[in-house]
Amino acid sequence: MHVVINGELVLESEARILISDLSIQRGYGVFDFFRTANYQPIFVEDHLDRFFHSANKMHLDVDLNRQQLKEMIQQLIEKNNLPDSGIRITLTGGYSIDGYSIAKPNLLITQTPFAFNKDNFKKGIKLVTYPHQRQLPEVKTIDYLQAIYLQPLIKANNADDVLYHHQNEISECPRSNFFIVMENDEIITPYKNILKGITRKRILEFPEFNIKEAVISLQHLEKAKEAFISSTTKAVLPVLKIDDRTIGNDRPGIMTTKIYNKIIAIGKLL
Amino acid sequence: MHVVINGELVLESEARILISDLSIQRGYGVFDFFRTANYQPIFVEDHLDRFFHSANKMHLDVDLNRQQLKEMIQQLIEKNNLPDSGIRITLTGGYSIDGYSIAKPNLLITQTPFAFNKDNFKKGIKLVTYPHQRQLPEVKTIDYLQAIYLQPLIKANNADDVLYHHQNEISECPRSNFFIVMENDEIITPYKNILKGITRKRILEFPEFNIKEAVISLQHLEKAKEAFISSTTKAVLPVLKIDDRTIGNDRPGIMTTKIYNKIIAIGKLL
Repeated sequence: MHVVINGELVLESEARILISDLSIQRGYGVFDFFRTANYQPIFVEDHLDRFFHSANKMHLDVDLNRQQLKEMIQQLIEKNNLPDSGIRITLTGGYSIDGYSIAKPNLLITQTPFAFNKDNFKKGIKLVTYPHQRQLPEVKTIDYLQAIYLQPLIKANNADDVLYHHQNEISECPRSNFFIVMENDEIITPYKNILKGITRKRILEFPEFNIKEAVISLQHLEKAKEAFISSTTKAVLPVLKIDDRTIGNDRPGIMTTKIYNKIIAIGKLL
Repeated sequence: MHVVINGELVLESEARILISDLSIQRGYGVFDFFRTANYQPIFVEDHLDRFFHSANKMHLDVDLNRQQLKEMIQQLIEKNNLPDSGIRITLTGGYSIDGYSIAKPNLLITQTPFAFNKDNFKKGIKLVTYPHQRQLPEVKTIDYLQAIYLQPLIKANNADDVLYHHQNEISECPRSNFFIVMENDEIITPYKNILKGITRKRILEFPEFNIKEAVISLQHLEKAKEAFISSTTKAVLPVLKIDDRTIGNDRPGIMTTKIYNKIIAIGKLL
């Protein structure tokens, strides 16, 4: 597999950067991640919008303009000849002179095989709640320190992921957005202190559902008849259990299934 | 200058790691930093204690035992032949297979020249307060995302650094601990939700001062007659201004000066 480092195609096994990079020194960088289906990038304009927004917010210059970046991605897709994949664009703080100041960023583009597994939907997932508010939540930074630190807790609870909450408000999972379906079929998803996912954006655009962005308190979970998460790689997955509470009847709910079917169709996951 | 990557001495200009490392992918890693004075590591046992504690806390294995790590550091000191320096030991999440799971960590040891500037004490510093609580504050992780993000705010306020507070309690600066001196010469420093610095530890051991670890609220700042910060590179620096408030009489205070003189003596900065 090849990757791109600052405009150059190099073999993944030789893709290195200097250890003075601010990602290694201070965990400083941003990224975005999208899929390709049959060589076509999915929702790529939204992902590029968010990538340039993240870079700008974190004071990181992108050497390429949008068109140049798209051409670079296209070159990588052609080189690797991988129809269904995940593509990650990472922009780091660069080779810092003093190990603290931002330098000329390093732009890394990597591609990995991706196969969507439809069985995951039927199985659903279990979440374990944890009190935490991510820093700079609206920016897609490389900071997953808390999430990776919590992996043993997730395992100990036989859960699949963690669901963050802070001051009684649910926010998100580390790599996906969270939704609940209420008794009246109203669908609610948090709107503040979260990273706004592209799959979440697509769901909010569906005209035939009653979806709104609103606060979800911990107490709301007790009234939810369905819950699900959304992400680029997972599309939509039913949340069947949160801590020790079963949501709905332990099977993917009707509304969740409808949303899932729409998302895999427009996301070319059929 | 040479550095050590996983036990091998290499030139700094050639010191690279693969971009699959979890520091680059997910900002995941820990480090510690100490000085050498005339080739002698300063307070190195405390720094190694903290380093191994950080590694353990973050589920990262250290390939070397304490003695082996000390020998590696000694080799680097001899190779670079740099009497007064800063040495940083970094342990990253390693070359992750899936870009999320912890792998075999990469251990990096770097050395940089260090010259202590005594003029900085007379000048003192200005801090700007900012509401933030660092994640996993007691562990010396590589996460400085918020601090580096805030550099423009610090500049815009003509300040030298940021002072974090959360729920009305002062915690720390991103790279130093914070102290205030009250009217009765009692010295107070926060004790929870902070990284416990080694210079802070030395100061707390001074028998001739009335120092205690306690909550410092934002209101406490109004009653402070002196304030100062402590760190490995800065030793002790007087805080002469916090936001728009002048602390004391705009000169280094008596107690701060006493503490400073003791610290530079035992830290071999005279």
